[in-house]
Amino acid sequence: MKILILGDIVGRPGRNAVANQLSHLREEYKPDLVIVNGENASAGRGLTEKNAKELFELDIDVITTGNHVWDKKEILTYIESYPQLIRPANYPDPCPGKGYTIIHKGETTIGVINLSGVVYLSNLTNPFHTIDKILHEISKQCNIIILDFHAEATSEKLAMGYYCDGRISLVYGTHTHVQTADKRILNGGTGYITDIGMTGPLDGILGVDKDIIIQQMQNNRPARYDLAQGPVQINGIITEINEETGKCQSLDNFIRIIEE
Amino acid sequence: MKILILGDIVGRPGRNAVANQLSHLREEYKPDLVIVNGENASAGRGLTEKNAKELFELDIDVITTGNHVWDKKEILTYIESYPQLIRPANYPDPCPGKGYTIIHKGETTIGVINLSGVVYLSNLTNPFHTIDKILHEISKQCNIIILDFHAEATSEKLAMGYYCDGRISLVYGTHTHVQTADKRILNGGTGYITDIGMTGPLDGILGVDKDIIIQQMQNNRPARYDLAQGPVQINGIITEINEETGKCQSLDNFIRIIEE
Amino acid sequence: MKILILGDIVGRPGRNAVANQLSHLREEYKPDLVIVNGENASAGRGLTEKNAKELFELDIDVITTGNHVWDKKEILTYIESYPQLIRPANYPDPCPGKGYTIIHKGETTIGVINLSGVVYLSNLTNPFHTIDKILHEISKQCNIIILDFHAEATSEKLAMGYYCDGRISLVYGTHTHVQTADKRILNGGTGYITDIGMTGPLDGILGVDKDIIIQQMQNNRPARYDLAQGPVQINGIITEINEETGKCQSLDNFIRIIEE
Amino acid sequence: MKILILGDIVGRPGRNAVANQLSHLREEYKPDLVIVNGENASAGRGLTEKNAKELFELDIDVITTGNHVWDKKEILTYIESYPQLIRPANYPDPCPGKGYTIIHKGETTIGVINLSGVVYLSNLTNPFHTIDKILHEISKQCNIIILDFHAEATSEKLAMGYYCDGRISLVYGTHTHVQTADKRILNGGTGYITDIGMTGPLDGILGVDKDIIIQQMQNNRPARYDLAQGPVQINGIITEINEETGKCQSLDNFIRIIEE
Ligand SMILES: [Fe+2]
Ligand SMILES: [Fe+2]
Ligand SMILES: [Fe+2]
Ligand SMILES: [Fe+2]
Ligand SMILES: [Fe+2]
Ligand SMILES: [Fe+2]
Ligand SMILES: [Fe+2]
Ligand SMILES: [Fe+2]
Repeated sequence: MKILILGDIVGRPGRNAVANQLSHLREEYKPDLVIVNGENASAGRGLTEKNAKELFELDIDVITTGNHVWDKKEILTYIESYPQLIRPANYPDPCPGKGYTIIHKGETTIGVINLSGVVYLSNLTNPFHTIDKILHEISKQCNIIILDFHAEATSEKLAMGYYCDGRISLVYGTHTHVQTADKRILNGGTGYITDIGMTGPLDGILGVDKDIIIQQMQNNRPARYDLAQGPVQINGIITEINEETGKCQSLDNFIRIIEE
Repeated sequence: MKILILGDIVGRPGRNAVANQLSHLREEYKPDLVIVNGENASAGRGLTEKNAKELFELDIDVITTGNHVWDKKEILTYIESYPQLIRPANYPDPCPGKGYTIIHKGETTIGVINLSGVVYLSNLTNPFHTIDKILHEISKQCNIIILDFHAEATSEKLAMGYYCDGRISLVYGTHTHVQTADKRILNGGTGYITDIGMTGPLDGILGVDKDIIIQQMQNNRPARYDLAQGPVQINGIITEINEETGKCQSLDNFIRIIEE
Repeated sequence: MKILILGDIVGRPGRNAVANQLSHLREEYKPDLVIVNGENASAGRGLTEKNAKELFELDIDVITTGNHVWDKKEILTYIESYPQLIRPANYPDPCPGKGYTIIHKGETTIGVINLSGVVYLSNLTNPFHTIDKILHEISKQCNIIILDFHAEATSEKLAMGYYCDGRISLVYGTHTHVQTADKRILNGGTGYITDIGMTGPLDGILGVDKDIIIQQMQNNRPARYDLAQGPVQINGIITEINEETGKCQSLDNFIRIIEE
Repeated sequence: MKILILGDIVGRPGRNAVANQLSHLREEYKPDLVIVNGENASAGRGLTEKNAKELFELDIDVITTGNHVWDKKEILTYIESYPQLIRPANYPDPCPGKGYTIIHKGETTIGVINLSGVVYLSNLTNPFHTIDKILHEISKQCNIIILDFHAEATSEKLAMGYYCDGRISLVYGTHTHVQTADKRILNGGTGYITDIGMTGPLDGILGVDKDIIIQQMQNNRPARYDLAQGPVQINGIITEINEETGKCQSLDNFIRIIEE
């Protein structure tokens, strides 16, 4: 089974890029499943129901999120209606929404999990404990298991990759908005990449106007984050997982630049 | 002028890899200048005088460092004797050592600068103010200027890249030990990559034994960091800078795996 | 000279308490100078021009601030018109406003300085370097010098107290909104207290509704901070400084509870 | 029942002060139970078995700890042999030692709990969830319940105080080493103070030599922490709890200075 995954979609530029380019990516890669990270899809912070619907209308199978998941408050009430929109599983109970979802594609059952790191981020439940708990629940029923580990520190992401090696099909990172060059298949058969990057303005800083961020780093005063304009990048990965063994057979990362 | 740069050398495995492979890399890339980051070269933390000497004996031109620079205390006294060993320039004055060095190669004068980020790291002097000050001092005398920006956050690194665009030849990041896939030449002619990665054990976590780090992330208790064993990776970049214009003409990243 | 200082004024409850009680405190303590911290005076975050004016109309001599100083954006433009409203001196240049002010009372010249800590707070210019620079500028012209060190960590505040001992009259802390019990006169004659506390709702958490904060600490999701209601506390200190020597002669802290 | 509690004992100066003064404090306050925080008792970091024994030989009933609990590695193996030596309950399972202990004094059963905050500290299990779980286990069997909440942020400590109000007898904070002036009995009958302070060198910074800390804050380089010398302070609280109702009837804080 081939799976196409796109990094954090940032604002309207990111949503437009997905709307316009996903069909081309499908033609090229022939994915059986498409996953995107939507935590920044609405004006750079959070995800409105309207924008979630638009993404699902593109036949995206799963939307994962991250630390910005609650930035648009309406998600607290609408998330329960969209089981394929998931939030980091390690928010403490009780919490709206689910931290994983189970998808059926023909004979194949795929579990998609979302977790947040805790290093330099909020103090959520220990993600290593949470993944054990979830795998205990879903491993038997799933042929393939995919984890979006939304985290800052490379150490925490690598640790999660090794920790899951041999137990799940793929661990990929999101959150830094910069794609890493370290994709590989670990010894136990788990595909791994530290960060798949972002989908949104190219000449910005994580999607935000670069002059705003530079000024803020010079003056240390709060600022309003407007998104950058101009060309857009689509960062993602394409992976092939064996449905019988659940092992990762190939993993490739890509960065596409869309000129205006 | 061609410049070869290697990411954070971690411990003996990293030092051995450099000692054994640098001549092959030289043959392949024909660099005119070689820079390495040495902050983790001695047992994973800091740099002894002995290890610094060994690296310079390989005809490495400049050793940059980072937040671990002071971990071996002897560097406080010996660093002044090695002008081509530099430490982040934004440690407050007075501080042993220098934050940049000037190298002469034939007719060409090259400035190499080392700065530390402040996001998720120590509260040093603002790096954007420091780079302005240094460029004011050295820009006129240098044909080429290179910056090792040792920082954690992708936002801070990208901001520094854009901030220096058109003013220096190359901004590259170190510290996360994971190479990024985002190398490019910015509009003003500055080469940029968020992180060039590390040189040391492949099957570890930033070079450290993976089981130690996983356990620590599970139990949140202090641990002793032993280095990982097994195959070694060499992460780096090769860039070509025009000596007349100081602009980056090409930039490529590489990861070499050395089986035992 | 007697100086009365009140801790961070939080919102309308805090402003009302000052408006209603300051005359009583003046009768009781007969201060020659009154200083308040106003960083939270407007709805708990920042300070509007209207609220700053109201405080100055109560004959408050100096308003200091802290990390929330820029939360109401209008201060960026109006602060320059109010030299007795100061912001942390260690924001990097250029920055609107001043980090200290000089007051004349009869024959006595008083310097009031505001600094921010950097531990667990923004990465501003090193406060120990900044205080040296300011003292170099103003020590000769001032009989008395007072420092509001707005900081989180007790270690950083104590370090600043000792660092200034014998060089200025008083170092007091703000920011934690909880008054400490450690006031004393250091060996060099400098009065010191780690934190003077806050002026605002008593049965809240730093002034904010306690249920909001408890819920946020349980669920780790963003929340809107409404202020607490009910009785109000006024936290402050009264100190007597010798105008000839600049030494602190007495220092007392107080907490007043104002029932509704 | 009267309970005497002393703040973080720092090194030999702190241990000596307790050894020499505890009998005087007992005479004065007539406590039925004595609790001390021992996380810094051995050279400022951690607690050796030898030092733990010495403290228990003074008839101290319970030793609580905090973030430095594991700094002397031997505690990992000996802690299980001393049920009255406890560590923060919210270290994830499995973890050596216990997070609470049950003491019997005549007819009265007292539960003493130790928790760590997570703001600006390690990412442990959510302390608000952990306290609920522990109270569910022990509330019925205890007449009196005491909590040492070892935390940095005043907001987190106040939140825990209110959260436990009416459910336990006393919530007191440790860790900042500076005593706060905010002790009070909350509406539900729970005694509360944000921090009880420390027991150790007076003219230091949290017990450490002040010049070392000042220099480190000036130069941002690592340093070895030697303890301060000279007079010693004993910070603590004395509280009276009603054995029938479990309510706090009185709470007083004290700071004693012991000249050499
Ligand atoms: Fe994101
Ligand atoms: Fe994120
Ligand atoms: Fe490094
Ligand atoms: Fe580093
Ligand atoms: Fe405040
Ligand atoms: Fe503040
Ligand atoms: Fe402590
Ligand atoms: Fe502590």
